[in-house]
Amino acid sequence: MRPMGAAGRVWAHVGQPFSERGYGAVVLGAGRMGAACAFFLRRLAPELRLLLVERGGLPNEEGATVLAPGVWTALNVSPERRAEAAWTRAQTEREFGDVSWQARPLLELLTREAAGAVPTPSLLPRFPELAHLVDPEALPFAQVDEGAATYRPGAVALACGQRAVRAGADLLLNTHAHLTPGGVRLDRLTVTNTHEVVTHESREVLAGVVIVAMGADGPPGAEHGLGLHTGHGRAYRQAPRLNTPSGEATPVLRVDGLTLRPQHGGFTLIPPIHHRDPHGYTPIGGRLTGVPVGIRRETLEDLVERMGVLPPLGTEALEVGRSLADIPGAWLALPDGDPTAPPRHEEVAPGLHLLLGGPHADTLGLAVAYDLAAKVAGVEERPWEG
Amino acid sequence: MRPMGAAGRVWAHVGQPFSERGYGAVVLGAGRMGAACAFFLRRLAPELRLLLVERGGLPNEEGATVLAPGVWTALNVSPERRAEAAWTRAQTEREFGDVSWQARPLLELLTREAAGAVPTPSLLPRFPELAHLVDPEALPFAQVDEGAATYRPGAVALACGQRAVRAGADLLLNTHAHLTPGGVRLDRLTVTNTHEVVTHESREVLAGVVIVAMGADGPPGAEHGLGLHTGHGRAYRQAPRLNTPSGEATPVLRVDGLTLRPQHGGFTLIPPIHHRDPHGYTPIGGRLTGVPVGIRRETLEDLVERMGVLPPLGTEALEVGRSLADIPGAWLALPDGDPTAPPRHEEVAPGLHLLLGGPHADTLGLAVAYDLAAKVAGVEERPWEG
Repeated sequence: MRPMGAAGRVWAHVGQPFSERGYGAVVLGAGRMGAACAFFLRRLAPELRLLLVERGGLPNEEGATVLAPGVWTALNVSPERRAEAAWTRAQTEREFGDVSWQARPLLELLTREAAGAVPTPSLLPRFPELAHLVDPEALPFAQVDEGAATYRPGAVALACGQRAVRAGADLLLNTHAHLTPGGVRLDRLTVTNTHEVVTHESREVLAGVVIVAMGADGPPGAEHGLGLHTGHGRAYRQAPRLNTPSGEATPVLRVDGLTLRPQHGGFTLIPPIHHRDPHGYTPIGGRLTGVPVGIRRETLEDLVERMGVLPPLGTEALEVGRSLADIPGAWLALPDGDPTAPPRHEEVAPGLHLLLGGPHADTLGLAVAYDLAAKVAGVEERPWEG
Repeated sequence: MRPMGAAGRVWAHVGQPFSERGYGAVVLGAGRMGAACAFFLRRLAPELRLLLVERGGLPNEEGATVLAPGVWTALNVSPERRAEAAWTRAQTEREFGDVSWQARPLLELLTREAAGAVPTPSLLPRFPELAHLVDPEALPFAQVDEGAATYRPGAVALACGQRAVRAGADLLLNTHAHLTPGGVRLDRLTVTNTHEVVTHESREVLAGVVIVAMGADGPPGAEHGLGLHTGHGRAYRQAPRLNTPSGEATPVLRVDGLTLRPQHGGFTLIPPIHHRDPHGYTPIGGRLTGVPVGIRRETLEDLVERMGVLPPLGTEALEVGRSLADIPGAWLALPDGDPTAPPRHEEVAPGLHLLLGGPHADTLGLAVAYDLAAKVAGVEERPWEG
């Protein structure tokens, strides 16, 4: 036994022998949801021996966390979840060091008047970039979320993972986890000198609680490992780049579900998710007037549809790539197969919890990770209540 | 020139030399939509030299026509399309010989009361099969379409193709067509003695009008051939079998979008289409409690969801197969990517028409094929009007 208050151990590669046989809780996946849940578990249940397992490094670089838009906005949050959203905002801004937090309004541009909307031309003096981005005659109204902000979800995941370890969580990297009845099988991965990723050794570890936070891979992992069925879905989302100038004061724009997120001096485009992708789908690039490009066809169509109201989409400022690998993309979990569903957790078998971020993790993810940690710890209070 | 009134020629295999260089109109695809359009074109524009091209035999055996549910119903037809639906019904019943026409009511079973609905138990004396199929407490109400009928769309396509040829259309089978500016390139296919399908010869044919009636392959064909972009989609639909007895008097049932179509002494299940499948999707089977089955996952979920209200779905009466090949399935065109859209035609370039059947071709397909033929022929009148 280690002394209370000591940092956890980290196994980064197979040269470090791992011989643990059991934990109170194991969290699978060190993306934003898993790393945050591990961090909150150390705070709320310090007596629980905790292992965080990640297939790659910290934070996970292949899932939705690193490619998440990093846009916090209260637009589209239902009234009963607003306290959680506000808590997630405050935590993200203040508690995890430098996460590139940047308060900036989000403008939802509309084709017709709506409650609380202002005329788009009235925003031009404040946001001069709008003149080059938007046709104000086609989008004459705008709803403004003054409390919106952008940040880096990957930085949140990294900070949560590091703090969890500092607070005593063990961390096992480069390890592929499979669910078994009562625990997990851990395949520690290594790379051969022919660059093949292979399993170096497998360990069975028992755990009273297993939290599956593997993003879009979580529900299939639970299903294949334990023969369960879940109603969750997934979608492959690409985030193409639009090279039109942006700065610190540039707002986030949203047009009919398409988000333009100022980033690296231009914009990252976050397309809408209309529905899940079918089981077995492998993303491929589309064609633009016959020429192969790296953006999947469904996303291309969404961009082409909006060219009229967002003229830069019809120019070379849009990076379309030549193959799928040119356009960053990641699989996203869709809780209940529903692109509008907030993040959630679900106990799919006794002691086995699925933790899903999905499209709205930027706004609500931390609160849902906290909620699961508190539930596992037997803590009734939630910091956003009362 | 052949004499007016003579039958057209048929090229079934590459041993029959094909040396035509031009037609007034070429119809690509001898499924239900293409064959019907060719037939109506011969009636409405007998002076137009016409070629019907099919990749396989007559009728097409790989597309949606042969697997179509063959259910005519006025439920869900919008008021402005009802005359076309009635005309399609009358034509199908009377004009194409034996198409296995069977008038039988369609019962849409509901969880709650709706306009015109009757209590499900009141239907039990008339439809005793219901007692074994449905939980009347879970589905206490039903809307009845007394005018519904079942038939074989493949038989309609065959009759239309044969009559088109008898009325003078030429027919080229086993030929893969590609669009070219001003016409088509025709790759005549043959099978080698190692069972490989290869192109025996290619012919360029000029045509004033080209009608692309290749089902789900139509829009991609037009796009690849001519660099166009269309907003149409497609979906892969499987029709699993439910081996629960049915007879001539058994009604068609519909439960939350799932249709149970009495056929061959049991039922063919026609699952709902929720949305299009993404570009590049290759269908694969799913898993039922961990075991691979031939039904795609999305359809499995639809069936599992309805097991409570349709108890036979939870028994061995449902054929789930062991791989995709065990469960009949076909790609369906979705006009405008919308599963609720009626059949339609669209002139995507001068003289180039897309003709799409889609999920509602059973009820409206013939009228839309007629409408396109009349448009090409310059005929103003429609038989279902005034």
